Amino acid sequence: MQTFANLLTIDKSEKTPLFLQISTAISDNIRRGVILAGAQLPGTRALAESLGIHRKTVVAAYEELLAQGWIETKASSGTFVSNKLPEMKPVLLQKKPARTTGAGPKAGFPFHNDPLLRRPIIKGSNLLAFNDGFPDVRLAPWDALSRAFRTVLRQGYRKNLLFYSDLFGEPSLRAAMAAYLRETRGLPVTEENILITRGSTMGLYLTSNLVLRPGDVVIVGEISYGSANLIFQKTGAKLMKVPVDERGLDVNAIAEICKKNPVRLIYVTPHHHYPTTVTMPAERRIGLLQLAQAYNFCILEDDYDYDFHYDCNPVLPLAGADAGGHVVYTGSLCKAISPALRIGYIVAPADLIESMGQLRRIIDRQGDQLMEAAVAVLFKEGELRRHLKKAQKTYHRRRDLFCEMLKSELSHVVEFAKPTGGMAVWAKFDKAVSLPMLAVKARDKGLLISDGTGYDPNLNATRLGFASVNEEEMERGMGILKGVI
Amino acid sequence: MQTFANLLTIDKSEKTPLFLQISTAISDNIRRGVILAGAQLPGTRALAESLGIHRKTVVAAYEELLAQGWIETKASSGTFVSNKLPEMKPVLLQKKPARTTGAGPKAGFPFHNDPLLRRPIIKGSNLLAFNDGFPDVRLAPWDALSRAFRTVLRQGYRKNLLFYSDLFGEPSLRAAMAAYLRETRGLPVTEENILITRGSTMGLYLTSNLVLRPGDVVIVGEISYGSANLIFQKTGAKLMKVPVDERGLDVNAIAEICKKNPVRLIYVTPHHHYPTTVTMPAERRIGLLQLAQAYNFCILEDDYDYDFHYDCNPVLPLAGADAGGHVVYTGSLCKAISPALRIGYIVAPADLIESMGQLRRIIDRQGDQLMEAAVAVLFKEGELRRHLKKAQKTYHRRRDLFCEMLKSELSHVVEFAKPTGGMAVWAKFDKAVSLPMLAVKARDKGLLISDGTGYDPNLNATRLGFASVNEEEMERGMGILKGVI
Repeated sequence: MQTFANLLTIDKSEKTPLFLQISTAISDNIRRGVILAGAQLPGTRALAESLGIHRKTVVAAYEELLAQGWIETKASSGTFVSNKLPEMKPVLLQKKPARTTGAGPKAGFPFHNDPLLRRPIIKGSNLLAFNDGFPDVRLAPWDALSRAFRTVLRQGYRKNLLFYSDLFGEPSLRAAMAAYLRETRGLPVTEENILITRGSTMGLYLTSNLVLRPGDVVIVGEISYGSANLIFQKTGAKLMKVPVDERGLDVNAIAEICKKNPVRLIYVTPHHHYPTTVTMPAERRIGLLQLAQAYNFCILEDDYDYDFHYDCNPVLPLAGADAGGHVVYTGSLCKAISPALRIGYIVAPADLIESMGQLRRIIDRQGDQLMEAAVAVLFKEGELRRHLKKAQKTYHRRRDLFCEMLKSELSHVVEFAKPTGGMAVWAKFDKAVSLPMLAVKARDKGLLISDGTGYDPNLNATRLGFASVNEEEMERGMGILKGVI
Repeated sequence: MQTFANLLTIDKSEKTPLFLQISTAISDNIRRGVILAGAQLPGTRALAESLGIHRKTVVAAYEELLAQGWIETKASSGTFVSNKLPEMKPVLLQKKPARTTGAGPKAGFPFHNDPLLRRPIIKGSNLLAFNDGFPDVRLAPWDALSRAFRTVLRQGYRKNLLFYSDLFGEPSLRAAMAAYLRETRGLPVTEENILITRGSTMGLYLTSNLVLRPGDVVIVGEISYGSANLIFQKTGAKLMKVPVDERGLDVNAIAEICKKNPVRLIYVTPHHHYPTTVTMPAERRIGLLQLAQAYNFCILEDDYDYDFHYDCNPVLPLAGADAGGHVVYTGSLCKAISPALRIGYIVAPADLIESMGQLRRIIDRQGDQLMEAAVAVLFKEGELRRHLKKAQKTYHRRRDLFCEMLKSELSHVVEFAKPTGGMAVWAKFDKAVSLPMLAVKARDKGLLISDGTGYDPNLNATRLGFASVNEEEMERGMGILKGVI
């Protein structure tokens, strides 16, 4: 019996009970084809002796294996590996499954690894950064959020909050969001027009998947948001690009495309065109809405940083003037508060929202109602409004300072227009200064900037975010930039 | 000028500043085609008089409109609606956008409203319920979660936590989850094999979308999880169904299908087959793995309620014996803790996980790293383990009691096998008792049960969940059921 016992490695110092170690070791060996179907197992007494443990432990292990169907007992003749098990193929199932390091085998079946989707990702870093235009997460109302979360959880064991929730978002947040969008953006919406998501990305994904089919035409700016382009392309739709000037998308070019192609969707960031930050003026907005009416396409309006504007009140979103149900409007609290606060929204005609909820159900079931309820508390208590006011003031000051510094320190190599809002400057570098090389050098000195290739590799231009850096950091960063140019 | 002023509705009691009310009202009228391009605006003094407000307010409103590009001033001749605006078409843009009730227009563009996806949804309710098999959310460690969340937020302004995060999940939770899965399920995994999702649904969606293409064959049980079927069908894959008996999926039937069809994926819930709760024994599991090896298909193992088992230790998941990289394993904390805690996981070969992260990026960007970090704290502090131990004990007692009651009170109309684990009993009702009618009657008396049509309308069978009701509730519910039969 010594041979059999040798197959079993047991460790008395482990947390897993001994009987379970034994039963698992035996079933592993059966699976791996080392112990074959029909083989007789040693008696409990003999095995207990070989292993130097109490017999009861082996009995418990055998009972476990019996209950799991690995073995069977035959009256008076003993215990056997079940004959119902199919013939083992040790060559196929030989790997010992106790691996705790290394990533294991590759997938043993084909899958569609789309090279289109392989991109580097932006992650948090503690390095100083003039980033893509993100908020200063140090300003965000984290204590209030933490309190709100506790409040939500302490509202007693409200089953309906701790269970599954609505496909469209926590009702309290849908209502608060509708009020907020009406008040800040003039959007004529009610709860039925709103789906709470976890960020704009899902807004783009759901819209694309409901509206687009392979071969459909989507219009985007010549320079635009790359992730959105990917999402459209993944549906099989065809991208057609129009020029972008200092007033945003060229609406005449859009009209020309519409005459010849079945356009289904136009992606637009009219408040601050991404990445160039320019604002689309009223006449182009109206022109775009009229085209949508004439050709029945969807305008996907991504209002990623509406909340921050410094020189005048913002032009109201296209969605506010959309009497014909042509606009899908999407945004999030990512830029308003923090990318870590995973709350976004889609505003659209109610029939489309209904379908979006049903589609979202097979992707992600629902949102996070606890977090959504907590954010609704922030809205209700005015925390969100207070935060936005504070941030708006801070970012306004930072924009002014940043643009002054950029002008005084780097105007010999950088061309830019002071943005009227948002959180970044679109900086065009002199061709003599290679942005990719500059980014590497700056990083070595402790400053992260994008090398611009993600926007358009030919432009030698990049977004320099000013919102997330305070005055001292801004000076330091600008010093590094100046030093490495 | 009275006429012009009449176009503007202002309300001094509103929170929106007066000047902004005026500028918005004017731009609304321009948009709606009521005030035409080129039209002269009244002088600020005259308009102020008509409206009975201070002139400065009108000046501010005009400055706003000027900044937004709606109007232009011509030296010495006055203020005009910008001529750059295209000709307005009042018929098209006539709707007043100040609506705050009613859902507004329908979508003005075609979209793919898939009737397949329109289903009633399960939501939380405060009614007593023998549900599909959900946990008792009153037992969940909410206070600990709330504390953990605060801890996470108070770890100082860790930018990398408050910013964008990894596509694959918060690193601390990935590590904790890998350890938990190794320990409780014998899965030979490391962090690289894990993607943190928000629930099993996304696990099914990502897998399907990476593995399946239109026309591919997916095998499921004759009776299976309807939402999973939908997710597969949405990819255009073809479902082929095999019989389900008291040992789960019929593996011989699967082998027959494989001989004649290019099978890409098999969906299986071997621990407790959904909805019938039976466990797949070892010999079928091995047979299934051998088929996967022979035909290179993906086994999608949905282990929705692995954590609860009462009669023996659970048979280890298929994923634990998968040396060839054929199994994608998915689960969530939904059943272990609460559907409201939106944390799930996918376990798969590292190359597939990598592609899943990239696909997830265009769907949802990332997970909720704050919540993920908080749950990692629960793992670390042993809260999760303590909770599972407590819940296991409680549900064990409840299962025994529930099955006793069902036998003593309803055995004349209900046939069932005591489940070895999980949170629900699969109850087959006598044909004389119409489940749909029974469900309506029970609801009227205050007890929710599923009418069974969602599982299979022909079986007159349903799942009766016992885990979420305490003894008193169980007696009350059983009394209601008995009363209405």
